[in-house]
Amino acid sequence: MKKIEHIGIAVKNIEASNDLFGKLFDKTHYKTEAVESEGVLTSFFKVGPNKIELLQATNAESPIAKFIEKKGEGIHHIAFAVKDIKAEIERLKGEGFRMIHEQPKRGADNKLIAFLHPKATNGVLIELCQDIDK
Amino acid sequence: MKKIEHIGIAVKNIEASNDLFGKLFDKTHYKTEAVESEGVLTSFFKVGPNKIELLQATNAESPIAKFIEKKGEGIHHIAFAVKDIKAEIERLKGEGFRMIHEQPKRGADNKLIAFLHPKATNGVLIELCQDIDK
Repeated sequence: MKKIEHIGIAVKNIEASNDLFGKLFDKTHYKTEAVESEGVLTSFFKVGPNKIELLQATNAESPIAKFIEKKGEGIHHIAFAVKDIKAEIERLKGEGFRMIHEQPKRGADNKLIAFLHPKATNGVLIELCQDIDK
Repeated sequence: MKKIEHIGIAVKNIEASNDLFGKLFDKTHYKTEAVESEGVLTSFFKVGPNKIELLQATNAESPIAKFIEKKGEGIHHIAFAVKDIKAEIERLKGEGFRMIHEQPKRGADNKLIAFLHPKATNGVLIELCQDIDK
């Protein structure tokens, strides 16, 4: 794993949170993106080599709506950048980790992504992501 | 803010978690450190420019013991590296953020640290940290 690619934070109102995190980082978010398959609206801030992704649910069935209902607003997941996501999934499965996605799928921000099951990782929801070559 | 310095993860058993995260990152932790004032035992992994800090409580009054009792194991805080922690605290107070520590204090890993109050930051516990010059 190369670095923390981003931290995903579940928020109720992305406009209010863009303002809040803008003040925190002393800069504005550099893009917003809707991921319809996940029922989320996202916005991204750059902090040096890392990003912060704010996530607001766009419908009641969204994983983010369910997370906020259960745990409240807060850190939802950590994403690590990997060079070869398929090889990393195979390595982790070999180490006994349970994957939510055994095959990478397309995520926000032009990435291939796969999540590990948090029951196997001390309650931390972990995402792997690999840049899609342009 | 320069980058994510580390993510702090609350764990019940740091030895078991060192093994788990060692498999996840395919490397061993590079140090352990007790912070007696906080009642925690910590271990650190490097992931590129970032770190993961595992935190185990060493007594029942530790903030980590209380966190796990309330929320279970999982992500406890995000720490951002800053160049000048005193200036950053003043800037954030000027933006209306509430600080847990209005003056920096000494933390693990040879840092000056200060925490923001999570009620002001969408439920995310945020730490600022600055390297102590050697």
